[in-house]
Amino acid sequence: MKKLSLLFLLSFLFVQSASVIFAKEDAMAKDVFAVIHSRKSVRNFTGEAVSKADLETIVRAGMAAPTAANKQPWSFVIVTKRSQLDDLAAALPHAKMLAKAGAAIIVCALPNEAINANKDFAVIDASLASENILLAVEGLGLGAVWTAAYPDPDRAKAVRDALKIPADIIPLNVIPIGHPTGEDKPKDKYKKEKIHWENW
Amino acid sequence: MKKLSLLFLLSFLFVQSASVIFAKEDAMAKDVFAVIHSRKSVRNFTGEAVSKADLETIVRAGMAAPTAANKQPWSFVIVTKRSQLDDLAAALPHAKMLAKAGAAIIVCALPNEAINANKDFAVIDASLASENILLAVEGLGLGAVWTAAYPDPDRAKAVRDALKIPADIIPLNVIPIGHPTGEDKPKDKYKKEKIHWENW
Repeated sequence: MKKLSLLFLLSFLFVQSASVIFAKEDAMAKDVFAVIHSRKSVRNFTGEAVSKADLETIVRAGMAAPTAANKQPWSFVIVTKRSQLDDLAAALPHAKMLAKAGAAIIVCALPNEAINANKDFAVIDASLASENILLAVEGLGLGAVWTAAYPDPDRAKAVRDALKIPADIIPLNVIPIGHPTGEDKPKDKYKKEKIHWENW
Repeated sequence: MKKLSLLFLLSFLFVQSASVIFAKEDAMAKDVFAVIHSRKSVRNFTGEAVSKADLETIVRAGMAAPTAANKQPWSFVIVTKRSQLDDLAAALPHAKMLAKAGAAIIVCALPNEAINANKDFAVIDASLASENILLAVEGLGLGAVWTAAYPDPDRAKAVRDALKIPADIIPLNVIPIGHPTGEDKPKDKYKKEKIHWENW
């Protein structure tokens, strides 16, 4: 009887230990503050593909961002085809890392759908969605980097031409996404002097 | 001897179970995707104070956001004094919820410190920091709402005047922060038609 209860306890203990390990790994991988502080601009990718399911999870996180008066003046182009990624890389001098990325998301701002049809609000709203996208990428263990299209008119035109984006829509950025090689590290950018208490 | 090992096992088991419970609670409270999707604009606060430590944690998350060419063209005014919060509420028709907020963070964009001294990049960079701030607030179990200062020149002037912010600096928003009453709920804003695969 004693042997049996000991055996029972031992197996229970094993299951418990396993749960602790998995729960901790899970918490480490996805804790919002850990993700915010471990997010980095990833420019070095392994070349592996990124799954459609992951890309949808990432864009879903983007659409959870707030927008002025809840107008949601945004759209998202998701590129996964190699030829398309290569075309973008050729058109954009700052996005050569697309060569080894598995995908790219282009966050578009739609001024006509923003509050008061205001371009600035459309750009801000699309920026918040983009930050959620960058955090979601990190949360999935992937890597990404914001390469700017807006406000440079030449770069914006290059992206519009490559992806058939209408002229009244602003491609804010091209975000290459892929599996990180591990070379890129987060920076600690905290500066106490950037905080003003009560007044400037 | 057997009794002793049983006792040892039982106490070990107790510690293990406690770890599982805490690890799971921790993971549930702070999972990055849970936080992204449960973040909502909170306009109803209990009136409780927000600790200085929490406000520093929140702004620290803001400064972890990426900026174009890592210029970090931002500053943060943190307001906790009741008289100061009331002055802001009086000056801003859309920020009346400051009356019951415990604090407010004003994210400022510094065009002169942005890449190419470009105002648009300063506003985008400060927007990304603001989104991190909103997520950090949710991650701590607090609530917040972005009330816009920029691009409305009158509102921006009201905030500048109330907080002695220099004329060349853009107060992007006023973010009241407090303990939520629970009335405000997140919205599901996912729309499949906002996604374009491969091309617009």
